[in-house]
Amino acid sequence: MSEPWTQIELDLAEQMRGSDIISVRQFESQELRTLLSIVARFEGDSQPLLHGRVLAALFFEPSTRTRLSFESAMARLGGSVIGFADAGISSASKGETLQDTIRIVESYCDLFVIRHPREGAARAAAEATFRPLINGGDGSNQHPTQTLLDLYTIQRRIGRVAGLRIGFLGDLKYGRAAHSLVEATAMLGNELILISPDSLRLPHRRVGELRERGTPYEETPNLAGAIPELDVLYVTRIQRERFVDPLDYERVKNAYQVDRATVDQGREGMIVMHPLPRVNEIHPDVDSSPRAAYFEQAKNGLTVRKALLALLMGAIE
Amino acid sequence: MSEPWTQIELDLAEQMRGSDIISVRQFESQELRTLLSIVARFEGDSQPLLHGRVLAALFFEPSTRTRLSFESAMARLGGSVIGFADAGISSASKGETLQDTIRIVESYCDLFVIRHPREGAARAAAEATFRPLINGGDGSNQHPTQTLLDLYTIQRRIGRVAGLRIGFLGDLKYGRAAHSLVEATAMLGNELILISPDSLRLPHRRVGELRERGTPYEETPNLAGAIPELDVLYVTRIQRERFVDPLDYERVKNAYQVDRATVDQGREGMIVMHPLPRVNEIHPDVDSSPRAAYFEQAKNGLTVRKALLALLMGAIE
Amino acid sequence: MSEPWTQIELDLAEQMRGSDIISVRQFESQELRTLLSIVARFEGDSQPLLHGRVLAALFFEPSTRTRLSFESAMARLGGSVIGFADAGISSASKGETLQDTIRIVESYCDLFVIRHPREGAARAAAEATFRPLINGGDGSNQHPTQTLLDLYTIQRRIGRVAGLRIGFLGDLKYGRAAHSLVEATAMLGNELILISPDSLRLPHRRVGELRERGTPYEETPNLAGAIPELDVLYVTRIQRERFVDPLDYERVKNAYQVDRATVDQGREGMIVMHPLPRVNEIHPDVDSSPRAAYFEQAKNGLTVRKALLALLMGAIE
Repeated sequence: MSEPWTQIELDLAEQMRGSDIISVRQFESQELRTLLSIVARFEGDSQPLLHGRVLAALFFEPSTRTRLSFESAMARLGGSVIGFADAGISSASKGETLQDTIRIVESYCDLFVIRHPREGAARAAAEATFRPLINGGDGSNQHPTQTLLDLYTIQRRIGRVAGLRIGFLGDLKYGRAAHSLVEATAMLGNELILISPDSLRLPHRRVGELRERGTPYEETPNLAGAIPELDVLYVTRIQRERFVDPLDYERVKNAYQVDRATVDQGREGMIVMHPLPRVNEIHPDVDSSPRAAYFEQAKNGLTVRKALLALLMGAIE
Repeated sequence: MSEPWTQIELDLAEQMRGSDIISVRQFESQELRTLLSIVARFEGDSQPLLHGRVLAALFFEPSTRTRLSFESAMARLGGSVIGFADAGISSASKGETLQDTIRIVESYCDLFVIRHPREGAARAAAEATFRPLINGGDGSNQHPTQTLLDLYTIQRRIGRVAGLRIGFLGDLKYGRAAHSLVEATAMLGNELILISPDSLRLPHRRVGELRERGTPYEETPNLAGAIPELDVLYVTRIQRERFVDPLDYERVKNAYQVDRATVDQGREGMIVMHPLPRVNEIHPDVDSSPRAAYFEQAKNGLTVRKALLALLMGAIE
Repeated sequence: MSEPWTQIELDLAEQMRGSDIISVRQFESQELRTLLSIVARFEGDSQPLLHGRVLAALFFEPSTRTRLSFESAMARLGGSVIGFADAGISSASKGETLQDTIRIVESYCDLFVIRHPREGAARAAAEATFRPLINGGDGSNQHPTQTLLDLYTIQRRIGRVAGLRIGFLGDLKYGRAAHSLVEATAMLGNELILISPDSLRLPHRRVGELRERGTPYEETPNLAGAIPELDVLYVTRIQRERFVDPLDYERVKNAYQVDRATVDQGREGMIVMHPLPRVNEIHPDVDSSPRAAYFEQAKNGLTVRKALLALLMGAIE
């Protein structure tokens, strides 16, 4: 945090102070780029910018990565965390509405992160409170801090988040992380290669949005053919329960397992990403490849979350 | 915390240092009034009076509100919290006695808050340790911090906790919060209007206590008739599982739902309280009424708990 | 922490900085003695040596004592804790490998404590990360901080950890705490009296190790005969589920319940230990005996863990 903030950074910080992070769609492409440059200021050790502040982390659905990352971010900034890791421990089990829970907990905290299985829950929660709120994932809808850490990882590795050819592999029908990153990378100006079995293609509506926006894209079931042209290969988890016929699952699973031999077909500098947890979509022999960026994604998640917490609390000095 | 403490406040603080909070009955009416005036000193931002101190929050039964409120209170005062949110995570599941758990955990903490499904558990726990202990609710018995925050809310809203006409509505047979507040408000000198269906009237023994004490009271099933005379309407949750006949439940539920039209029958200044969580006893259209005090109760709970933690630890400077 | 550290202490501290604690076997007997003398420096109030540091406490299996003790140790040293208390809340339920979980969480923390039901899990976890890691118990394998607190309790009570006659009572076949302490006390040079029913004797392999090492030992089913010769009686929990025939369990349980009359047969200075939780192996009438050392064990566990956390983080000043 040595170089002075630019005016455009300061303006964005001012705008974000006290606001909510519900969806990555709330940012324009210039704002996203500025946000990534602010995030970079939060690399490494942190000042206790949030000393005495309390984050309420309400996880109505379990999530190791997101929850621990927010808890750590808060600890690194000198603040405290209260909350629950599981709806079973909350008053929701007594029939309380989400709005009531939020209105009660707002007395105990300075800001919220909320994870909820229901689409739109984060928006509804944000409307119930005057405190800043971050969506930590609402059903199959949005998970903006995941998208921001994905973008930040691309920026950090490749040096830019535009003008790239980005491949999305696997379950493009249901995968929340992929949907949101498809949208953000399209907005930022990239070419998208959508690699999936026919049964897991990107939903029509989303393909339509790409067309309207004029985003160059290609749909293909063929990983081997696509990989040599990519700058980024974004792999997603294929869940067995999405398939009616188990044989279909086995076929797809085997066709799309990414191993060292696969990634070695990539051009120089191509990186491999995954929102994690992986099951067997990426073979462990890729882990030692310099292309593997998925554990860095987790690390970058911490940096992104520190930045967001500080920005929403207006604690950027 | 600007005005100097009065001698009577200092004396109570000295008396409470190192003690336990098991039941609101342990206080005399003058002590309760003094305690409320001390609580008011903990409004707003706090000094790190409990820096380096550790609270063990042992919740053998889940409770969002009480647990998060204590965790936040401790964080606001600069201290830390250890514990569990659910008996399943504790050694109780290996057959350990409550006394053994307490004697072990006392090595790790400076004071306790305990929530337990069994009546008398808090007293038993307090006897097993030399550390201060706060009862966070033991079965259908006592929940003194709830009663104190109820009283503090009345004090803050109306300016006094005596000489009022206080209506209790709903399940007066089983409701722990109502029982304890009935007792405290009777002791402090108020008139009580007990509004409930016949099947959920205040237990005989408790009515007898009111009579002995000479507390003016009235029992009625009629909400509409009672409401114009009240200063406070304290609504409680009516639980379906209390009724043998589901039709009885539906009848009662509908008769006692408090909505904006209902509360508008109240005199000027009447406030509506509820220990929360509510299910449908209070219609959301009451939330925007200036009479609604139930979300303030949650907020006041934080203030009360900060005060109690500081008092028991002797950290009032 | 007033007397200056000896050179041998400083050397051990330097050696432990950044290392892992997987098994008590990793220490030689001189190192164990030095470690115990370092632990003594962490008695009482602590400096905030770990201010700003984050411990990840990953409990894939619940444990009140171990988890709360580590959380408290970290709080006492000024640090923070993130983690989970139960595998159900972790990503393990999504099929993630332990190695992946560790590699992700290492971005969020400075060191780990891990509890896992599988033997060898701690070693595997330590190999996945460059951060220091403490084994908080892996299946029936190792629980080194338990053994260290046991040794520290003997040292503190009796003044030495060698040249003693130490009796182990109960389930010597399955009891992890007993296995590990048998090994450590044998290495340090003590005589061991192994008191158990025939069905729960120390495994052949472990008896063989004692023979090879030349450790004087005796196996007997007879508690009454053994007790007058002991300096330490280490009682373990006998679990009903270990017995095929419930009558066998009842017989053993009754034969080995240690009560005040039993311990009064001990020589002066004999102490009674138990890793806790106890069910009914030790009658509560022993609690008030000066021989009872089991609640002190819990207290000493905090001191041991503070020392280890500080040593692994290289924060000993």
